[in-house]
Amino acid sequence: MSQIWINNGTFITMDDSKPQFQGHMVVQDDLIVYLGEKEPEGLEENVQKLDGSGLVFMPGLINTHGHAAMSLLRGYSDDQNLQVWLEQKMWPMEGRYVDQDTRAGSALAIVEMLRSGTTAFVDMYDRMDQVAEMVEQAGIRGVLTRGVIGLCPPDVQEAKLAEAIAFARDWNGKASGRITTMISPHAPYTCPPAYIERFVQAAHDYNLPLHTHMSETLAEVEQNVRDYGSRPVEHLDKLGFFSRPSLVAHAVHLNDAEIELLAAKGVAVSHNPVSNLKLASGVARVPDLLRAGVTVSLGTDSAASNNNLDLFEEIRFSALLHKGVSGDPTAIPALEALKLATVNGAKSIWQEDRLGMLRVGMKADFIALDSEQPHFYPKTDLVSHLVYSASGRDVKHVWIDGRQVVKNGECTLLDEEKIKSEAQASFERLLHA
Amino acid sequence: MSQIWINNGTFITMDDSKPQFQGHMVVQDDLIVYLGEKEPEGLEENVQKLDGSGLVFMPGLINTHGHAAMSLLRGYSDDQNLQVWLEQKMWPMEGRYVDQDTRAGSALAIVEMLRSGTTAFVDMYDRMDQVAEMVEQAGIRGVLTRGVIGLCPPDVQEAKLAEAIAFARDWNGKASGRITTMISPHAPYTCPPAYIERFVQAAHDYNLPLHTHMSETLAEVEQNVRDYGSRPVEHLDKLGFFSRPSLVAHAVHLNDAEIELLAAKGVAVSHNPVSNLKLASGVARVPDLLRAGVTVSLGTDSAASNNNLDLFEEIRFSALLHKGVSGDPTAIPALEALKLATVNGAKSIWQEDRLGMLRVGMKADFIALDSEQPHFYPKTDLVSHLVYSASGRDVKHVWIDGRQVVKNGECTLLDEEKIKSEAQASFERLLHA
Repeated sequence: MSQIWINNGTFITMDDSKPQFQGHMVVQDDLIVYLGEKEPEGLEENVQKLDGSGLVFMPGLINTHGHAAMSLLRGYSDDQNLQVWLEQKMWPMEGRYVDQDTRAGSALAIVEMLRSGTTAFVDMYDRMDQVAEMVEQAGIRGVLTRGVIGLCPPDVQEAKLAEAIAFARDWNGKASGRITTMISPHAPYTCPPAYIERFVQAAHDYNLPLHTHMSETLAEVEQNVRDYGSRPVEHLDKLGFFSRPSLVAHAVHLNDAEIELLAAKGVAVSHNPVSNLKLASGVARVPDLLRAGVTVSLGTDSAASNNNLDLFEEIRFSALLHKGVSGDPTAIPALEALKLATVNGAKSIWQEDRLGMLRVGMKADFIALDSEQPHFYPKTDLVSHLVYSASGRDVKHVWIDGRQVVKNGECTLLDEEKIKSEAQASFERLLHA
Repeated sequence: MSQIWINNGTFITMDDSKPQFQGHMVVQDDLIVYLGEKEPEGLEENVQKLDGSGLVFMPGLINTHGHAAMSLLRGYSDDQNLQVWLEQKMWPMEGRYVDQDTRAGSALAIVEMLRSGTTAFVDMYDRMDQVAEMVEQAGIRGVLTRGVIGLCPPDVQEAKLAEAIAFARDWNGKASGRITTMISPHAPYTCPPAYIERFVQAAHDYNLPLHTHMSETLAEVEQNVRDYGSRPVEHLDKLGFFSRPSLVAHAVHLNDAEIELLAAKGVAVSHNPVSNLKLASGVARVPDLLRAGVTVSLGTDSAASNNNLDLFEEIRFSALLHKGVSGDPTAIPALEALKLATVNGAKSIWQEDRLGMLRVGMKADFIALDSEQPHFYPKTDLVSHLVYSASGRDVKHVWIDGRQVVKNGECTLLDEEKIKSEAQASFERLLHA
């Protein structure tokens, strides 16, 4: 049994029953066992003691949509029309990926996420064994899924579906429970309806949740209406998609009826504000979704369309963008923005019983930010500072399952220099292959 | 005479004739005297040599609108209706400011700006002697102006105008030319027309440029039409404002005719995207302004409505926001966004002959970012990384006038600990005064 005692810290818990306090936290193995202003009692003799002064502790951030391996393509194509970006730039490069590239890109992404305070991330890509092995090694938490594009001959469709199922079945619960899995047809516009129904069936058969891209662009919504006679939400609903726990990414173009349906079916939405702006997809109706009771969380999408994986930036964009666009300066106040990346992130991956808050009995997934920097002064309102002023670069330490995975800004379980040089080598090989 | 020789660096110059190269830069006293791939020749024996490997050098950023002293109010009021924020929160606190508060708030702002790579800033506030003295001490470049709200009795108006003129006259060119000054009626809605005309006359008399807030909110534009029969641009034009070199902040609500007039009169616009979003003022028509030939630069506004002074964030917001809102993913590409904060910043403060680029003969105002971090990998396109992935926290060193003012992330000429604690003390006094 191992114990960590943090004393003298400032804690932002995201737990409404005790939102903020100065004091102590005790972690035993992978769980939080004490939180309070008073000194804890009855600790073990060999408890590891950490001075928390000058640090703000909060739950680790949860990134609910991304494609880690695409970090290799950061900065490879920007400021382009979506079709040029995708068809002339992303797909040709991705078509040349081998296992080592997926591993190198995922490792780079995981280093960046850990260092900026993300302790759990959703990843949809292929060659997912590579990603899962990196998650295992890095100590991060991953919700992993083999995303399948179904625009291919029936035998290839079969093989991809089988691969997606095998991955989800084999890796669910692995890495001491840090890995969970989902089933993912890539999007309604890249998978024929009958093929999507087979993913829904698989999700039922293996008792797994579903994840997909939905209504990211207006063109895609219009195409759905043209091809299938209904908008994407109704279309997916008819295919039984929402009969399973589901997380949809983007959901930018929604009408009122669709928002109501998502709320009624308990569908979670991963809002990706930076990617949606960069690709000029539009601005999601987040205040309306939240008002309707939909669980909205935050995703970075990949570093190819962001171009970084600092979730503090998504928090800030979500707090600012919807004020400016709606004309309502009270839209998405600071605490709500912070909840999107913590409490709501946990709900979006169906782990709200153990993640997203600092609370006794919850998993010890937490981060410590250096609050002795000029942009944290004066000490007026820490939640405001975390949302409107902080950045992932302020994160000093990170723990997941009670294990310290970032110490003084560096990953403890990964060789960062090797990962950077392998990412560089992979990119150069892809470019000249 | 002092010489600095930077070797092995990567240089992003913002000079279209030589935009990017690997190599050397030599600084002599306050000027850049050599830039090139080849080793410089004929250097002095006591030249200070700096290894530039792993660093990206670029011109210092120029923040063209702000109120430094308001950093004391960071996080004091967020997520509020503009009127509540201003009238119930900001004004009562600002009304209690004494000299020491202005000094403490400005010092905090200057530390934050320097550490995040800003080498010149526009500041409009009162008690400007305090700000100017801090600028002198910190080694930063300041374009300073006493902003005057004219909703007061004639004798107070007289006194404020006299103070504004005296400050502008006394401090222009001081601190070895690092301080320049402007004349600033606060805004058309806070200054009667005849009073604005007196500022215009003073600007003519003392050969100074003019600065003001303009068309920040829709309500203010409507009020202008109601009170004076014209929209703010036409109104200011009629008052002779644009007969002087002028910089207007915000310019969110403009019609086509106003954009044309600003272009024709050579008026520079300070775009403050984060502040405009946070206060829900709206989204300025930046792509239209740029197309019309208006010089657009970037401002943070104060930390009370931002809530940080990292200009890399304004660069990123300007590149992303206008794509998403216009639906055009090619709007404000990365290099253009970077120019807003450098070349255009220099034009906006009428110093394009000496600031905003790395070029022989220009002032040695430059910054070095640590590019050996995961979010700078792979090394695909450095300009893209600077815009879409970097942050002020990546700035390692800063030089102004050839003098190193930030070294390894810390201000060399300021006592940061003292400044933070004085800011905290000032805030607490204001709160309980």
